[in-house]
Amino acid sequence: MIEKELKFGTCVGVFTPGSDRYCRSGYGPPRTLDEMLEMASQVEGLGGLELVSNWHVKEDTVAQVKKDLEKHGLEVCLLIADLWTRARWGKGSFASRDKGVREEAVQEVKKVMDLGVELGCDKVDLWLGQDGFDYSFQGDYSRDWDNIVECTRQCADHRSDVKLCIEYKLKEPRTHCYVNSAAKTLLLINEVQKDNVGVLLDVGHAIVAQENPAEAVALINRNGGRLFYVHLNDNYRYWDDDMMVGAVHLPLMLEFMYWLDEVGYDGYYGLDIFPYREDAVRAATESIEWLKTMRKLLSRIGRDKIREVIASGDATRSSRMIREAITAGM
Amino acid sequence: MIEKELKFGTCVGVFTPGSDRYCRSGYGPPRTLDEMLEMASQVEGLGGLELVSNWHVKEDTVAQVKKDLEKHGLEVCLLIADLWTRARWGKGSFASRDKGVREEAVQEVKKVMDLGVELGCDKVDLWLGQDGFDYSFQGDYSRDWDNIVECTRQCADHRSDVKLCIEYKLKEPRTHCYVNSAAKTLLLINEVQKDNVGVLLDVGHAIVAQENPAEAVALINRNGGRLFYVHLNDNYRYWDDDMMVGAVHLPLMLEFMYWLDEVGYDGYYGLDIFPYREDAVRAATESIEWLKTMRKLLSRIGRDKIREVIASGDATRSSRMIREAITAGM
Amino acid sequence: MIEKELKFGTCVGVFTPGSDRYCRSGYGPPRTLDEMLEMASQVEGLGGLELVSNWHVKEDTVAQVKKDLEKHGLEVCLLIADLWTRARWGKGSFASRDKGVREEAVQEVKKVMDLGVELGCDKVDLWLGQDGFDYSFQGDYSRDWDNIVECTRQCADHRSDVKLCIEYKLKEPRTHCYVNSAAKTLLLINEVQKDNVGVLLDVGHAIVAQENPAEAVALINRNGGRLFYVHLNDNYRYWDDDMMVGAVHLPLMLEFMYWLDEVGYDGYYGLDIFPYREDAVRAATESIEWLKTMRKLLSRIGRDKIREVIASGDATRSSRMIREAITAGM
Amino acid sequence: MIEKELKFGTCVGVFTPGSDRYCRSGYGPPRTLDEMLEMASQVEGLGGLELVSNWHVKEDTVAQVKKDLEKHGLEVCLLIADLWTRARWGKGSFASRDKGVREEAVQEVKKVMDLGVELGCDKVDLWLGQDGFDYSFQGDYSRDWDNIVECTRQCADHRSDVKLCIEYKLKEPRTHCYVNSAAKTLLLINEVQKDNVGVLLDVGHAIVAQENPAEAVALINRNGGRLFYVHLNDNYRYWDDDMMVGAVHLPLMLEFMYWLDEVGYDGYYGLDIFPYREDAVRAATESIEWLKTMRKLLSRIGRDKIREVIASGDATRSSRMIREAITAGM
Repeated sequence: MIEKELKFGTCVGVFTPGSDRYCRSGYGPPRTLDEMLEMASQVEGLGGLELVSNWHVKEDTVAQVKKDLEKHGLEVCLLIADLWTRARWGKGSFASRDKGVREEAVQEVKKVMDLGVELGCDKVDLWLGQDGFDYSFQGDYSRDWDNIVECTRQCADHRSDVKLCIEYKLKEPRTHCYVNSAAKTLLLINEVQKDNVGVLLDVGHAIVAQENPAEAVALINRNGGRLFYVHLNDNYRYWDDDMMVGAVHLPLMLEFMYWLDEVGYDGYYGLDIFPYREDAVRAATESIEWLKTMRKLLSRIGRDKIREVIASGDATRSSRMIREAITAGM
Repeated sequence: MIEKELKFGTCVGVFTPGSDRYCRSGYGPPRTLDEMLEMASQVEGLGGLELVSNWHVKEDTVAQVKKDLEKHGLEVCLLIADLWTRARWGKGSFASRDKGVREEAVQEVKKVMDLGVELGCDKVDLWLGQDGFDYSFQGDYSRDWDNIVECTRQCADHRSDVKLCIEYKLKEPRTHCYVNSAAKTLLLINEVQKDNVGVLLDVGHAIVAQENPAEAVALINRNGGRLFYVHLNDNYRYWDDDMMVGAVHLPLMLEFMYWLDEVGYDGYYGLDIFPYREDAVRAATESIEWLKTMRKLLSRIGRDKIREVIASGDATRSSRMIREAITAGM
Repeated sequence: MIEKELKFGTCVGVFTPGSDRYCRSGYGPPRTLDEMLEMASQVEGLGGLELVSNWHVKEDTVAQVKKDLEKHGLEVCLLIADLWTRARWGKGSFASRDKGVREEAVQEVKKVMDLGVELGCDKVDLWLGQDGFDYSFQGDYSRDWDNIVECTRQCADHRSDVKLCIEYKLKEPRTHCYVNSAAKTLLLINEVQKDNVGVLLDVGHAIVAQENPAEAVALINRNGGRLFYVHLNDNYRYWDDDMMVGAVHLPLMLEFMYWLDEVGYDGYYGLDIFPYREDAVRAATESIEWLKTMRKLLSRIGRDKIREVIASGDATRSSRMIREAITAGM
Repeated sequence: MIEKELKFGTCVGVFTPGSDRYCRSGYGPPRTLDEMLEMASQVEGLGGLELVSNWHVKEDTVAQVKKDLEKHGLEVCLLIADLWTRARWGKGSFASRDKGVREEAVQEVKKVMDLGVELGCDKVDLWLGQDGFDYSFQGDYSRDWDNIVECTRQCADHRSDVKLCIEYKLKEPRTHCYVNSAAKTLLLINEVQKDNVGVLLDVGHAIVAQENPAEAVALINRNGGRLFYVHLNDNYRYWDDDMMVGAVHLPLMLEFMYWLDEVGYDGYYGLDIFPYREDAVRAATESIEWLKTMRKLLSRIGRDKIREVIASGDATRSSRMIREAITAGM
C-alpha cells in the first residue's frame, strides 16, 4: 500500500490571510472564495477542498460554490460545521448550558450534512472547539458531557449516509477543550453508539496532546476502526502552530504515515496549516511535496523491513533505518 | 460529605532519601523499613502506608512487616507491584516482547495480590512505568497493547477479592508510556472487562498529562465508576516533580477534592511525594496539613454554593468563591 | 513596605471583547473608548489605564482622550506602542528586513512617547511581538538583533523624559520572539546603553518562559535595577492565557509580590487579562481583589519572617508559612 | 567551512548503563573504565572522551587513566567537575548556603583543572545542576547568585590556561536551576569578567529552555564570542531526554550546525546521550552517523545558498531548501 498514490486536500481557509488576537484584521487582504479557489488550483497535486460552513458555503451559495469548484477541477473532501466562528458559540455549542444554543448547533450540523450531500461530500467535521472550560469550578463535567453525547447522537441520526468526523484538540480557543484526545474521543464514540461517528485525527493536535500520532492511529483502529479523516501540519509541541508539514518532525511523521497505511487509511491527506506570513500557494505546495518525500522514504525502506525493525524494538535499528533511507541517494 | 474526615496514607518510600540519574547513591543515607516506619509514626494524621514489593516487602518478610506495622499502629493501604525497579523490566513488563518476562510480571502481581490479603490490604497498584517506547518505529502498538490487556486479565482472574488499581502516567521512565491518561486507562479497562480492575488517579500524573484532575474524576466515574485510589502531590506541569501538596496549585486542588466527594470517593488520600532535599516527616506532615486546609476551605463554602457556582459557568464567580473562602477569616 | 498601598491599572483593551483566529469578530460587541472608560470606572480600586496607540489613542484624538480620562478620574499609567496590530508589522517592526518598516516603527514609538508626555504618562511599552521567526533557517539572528538594538537606541534618544519599557515574551504571535526572557532583555539593554530603557515584566510571560517571576525580579534588579513596570495575570504555563489573577498560582504569586517589594518597585500593578467570555468589570475587579488578598497574606506573615524562611532554604518552612497565613483566620 | 571534518567526542558515561529514580541499580551491569574505553574504541569516528571527576578519574588514578586512553588512541576532550553526583552537593555547590560546601566545590573544580592539564585537556565543564531551588520562597536569589559569581571567579583565577565551560540547563535535578539559559549564562559571564569563562551549549538543554539552538549560538557569539563546547543529543522538548541525535528534530539540527560553522566553532561535537535501553556502541555510532549525514545535507546545499535563503526570510524557501537536499539523490 505504501506504493499507492495519496490524495491531497486542504482547507480553503489556507488561502485567506490568517488573523490573531493582536492583528485582528489579518496579515493580508481578504479574498473572495473564487480568488481562493483560483489559488488552490495552482497547488500541484491538490484534489480536494475543505469548506467551513458560513465562512465558505451556505444554503444560498451552495449551487454557485459547486459550479466554482467544478470549474477548477476540485472536489469537496470535507465540510466543517461552523460551531466556533461566532460569539454565539463562545460558551459552547453542544455543551452550551443554553438549550437554545445547543439546538441551534445541532441544526447547523444537520444543515451542513445536507449541504455535504449536495456537494458530493460524505464527511462532516465536528470540531467542538468552544466546548470546554477555562477556569477551575467552571466546567460541569457530567452535564456538559451528557449534552455532547446527546447532540452528537441527534446529528448522527439525521442521516446515516454522512460520516461525522470528530476532531479532537487539547485546547484553544478554550484553555481546556472537552474532546481533547484520541482516547477520550473513543470514549465519546462508545457512548454515542452510531456507526457514522468516527475520528478526525489532526497530527498537530495529537502532538500537542502529547500523543505519538502513529500510536493514536493504532488506538483508533483497535477501538472500532473508524479513522475517518486526517489533518496534516506541524508544530513545536506546546501549541497548535499549524505550520507547514516538514517544519519540525521527520521520524515522527514517517511513523505516522506508515501506520496510516497499516490500518488501511485511504482517505484524503488534508492540510490544516495557517501560513500567516507565507505565500499560501507555496506553503501548501511545500507541505504536499514534503508528504510525497516522506512517502518515498518509506517506500525506499519497504514495509517488510519496517515491520521487522519495529518487531525488534531496537531503537538503534529504527534510527539507522531512517538515516539510511535519507542517505541512500547520497 | 465534605464534612467527613479524610484518611491519609503515604508511600513508605517517602522516608527513603530519593536518588536520581545524577546522584545515584541518593540524597541521604539509606534506611531500614523499621526506621521508615518509625518516621511514619511521627506524621500526625497518617494512618496508612503503601509498600512496594521487593523494595519493602517480600514473601519471606511479610510476617515481620505485618508485626512492625502493628507496632506503629499503621495499616497497609496499598501494595505496589514491582514492575519497574529492576533491569529485568527495562524494556517492559506486561508489554515486554519477551514472553518469559511477561509471565514473570504476571507472577509478580499475583504474588503481590496474595501478600496484600495477608497484610489486610485489598488494593494492588499496577503502574506499568516501563511499558512504552522512546523512539519512533519502536513501539509495536497493536501487539504491545494486546499483551497489556492479556496480562492484566490474567492478574484480575487470579483472585477477585483484590482490586487492581491501574496507575496511568504520561511518561517517565519511558519517554512515552502506554497507559498514559485517564481516558486510555478506561479503554484498557473496557477491553479487560473485569470488575476488580479500576483506576489509580495520581493528581500529578493527571496534571502532566494536561488533564484537569477534577474532570478526570468525573470521566472515570462516568465510565464504570471504578476510581479505586488517589495519589496526592504537586508539580510544575511539565514533569512529575512529586512535590509537597500545596506547592503550586490551589484552585485546581480544591476542585479536585470537591469532585472526589461528588463521586463518593471514600478511600485513602495517599501521598506520592519525593522530598529529595527535605525532611521527610515534615514534608509529609505539610502535605497532609495542606489537604486539611483545602478541605476546610471547601467546607466553608459549602456544597450547595459550589454546585450553584459551577452551574452558572461564570468564572468570575468561581474566582470570588475561592477568594472569599480564604479571606473569610481575615 | 508590604504595608504600602498598591496602585492598580489595567489595559483598557480588557473592556473590548477579545477575538481570536477562530472567532475573528470577537466574543461580544465592539465598544467605544468612552464605553470602555465607563466600565473601567466601575472597577473598584482602579486608578490607571494603559492605552494602545492607534487602537485607543492617536494624535488627533489625544485631546479628547485626555478629557474623557479626567471625566472618569483615571490616569494613563502606560502607553503601548502599536508595533503589532497591523499587517504592516507582520514580518517584524524593529527587526523587519525592510528599512522602511523599521523607520516607520521607530517613528510610531517616538510619536507615542510624545503622546505620553501630553497625557501625563512617562512610560511607553515596547512589545516587539512580531519580531521573531517561525521556521528554521528564517531568522537572520545577527542582523535582526542589530536592528532591534539600533531602533531601540533611536527611540531612547528621542527624549530622555520618557521611559521605554521593553516587554519580553517567549512567543505569540511568532512561534519564537526575539526578546523572549528577562535575561535576554537585559542583554539587549546592555547593548543599547540608555538610561531610559528598562524592563516590563509580565508575570504570565515569565511563567511561559519557565522563569520563576520572583527570580526574574531579582535578576532585573541586579542588572541595572530598571524594572519599570509589571503586568499581572495568570496562565497554565504552556501559553499566555491571560487569565484573571488567582486562577492557578498562589505561592508563586506571593513570592513574586514579595520580591517586588524587596527591590522597591512602587509603580502600577497593571492587569493584562483577556476575559474573552467573562464580564470584564468583574474579571478586573476579581484580579484586583486577589492581589489585595495576596498582599494581606504577605502582611500577615511579615517581612522578617519571610526573610528568615528564605534564608533557611527549607521548603517545608516555606510551605508552612504560606499555609498558616491562610489558616490564621480559620 | 562546512566542508571541514568534524571532531566527535562522547561522555564516557554513555557506556555505563543508566539508572533513574525507579531503577536505582541501572538498566544493565556496571562496567569498569577499561571496559568502557574498549567500547568507546569500537565507535567509528570517535576521537575524544569526556570524563567526570570522581566517577571516572581522580588524582590517584589519573596516571592509569592517561595510559588507558593512549592505549585506545583516545584523547580527553572535556573534564566534567563533579558538583552533582553526591549528597554533599544536594542543596547546591557554588550556591550552597554552607560556606564549607562552597569551598569544597571550588576546590573540586581547581583540582579538576589541574587534572585536565595533566590529561592534556584544557576544558573543564561547570554544570551547576544542584544549584537552584524547587519551591517558592526557597531561593535566596541575590545571595545565591553572588556566591555563584564569586566561586566561578575563584576557579577562573586558579589558572588561566584552562577554560571553564559553563553548561546551562533549565531544570533537573532541581525544578529550577539558576544557570538555565544562554542569556542568563552570558549575564553571569559578564559579572565574572574572566577570559577563560565561556559557555557549553547542550543542544537538548537549549531545546528544553525553549531556545532555538541556532539562535543561542548567534547570541553567545555576539556577547563575547566564547562558545567553548557543544553537547549533542535530542529530546521531545519537555525534558532532557538525552536521546540519540536524529531522533526528533531535523531542520532545527541542520540550522544549529550551520550556525556553529558561521561563528567558527571548531571544537568537539560531544555526545551527551543516555542510551538506557540501547546498545551504547550502536547508539553513539548512530548519533555520529546522523551528524555526518546532516553535515552532508548542508554541504549539498552550500553556504551561499543558505545565506541567501535566510536573508530572504521566506519560510517556504527554507522548507524547500531542506527538502531538496534530501531528495537530491532520490
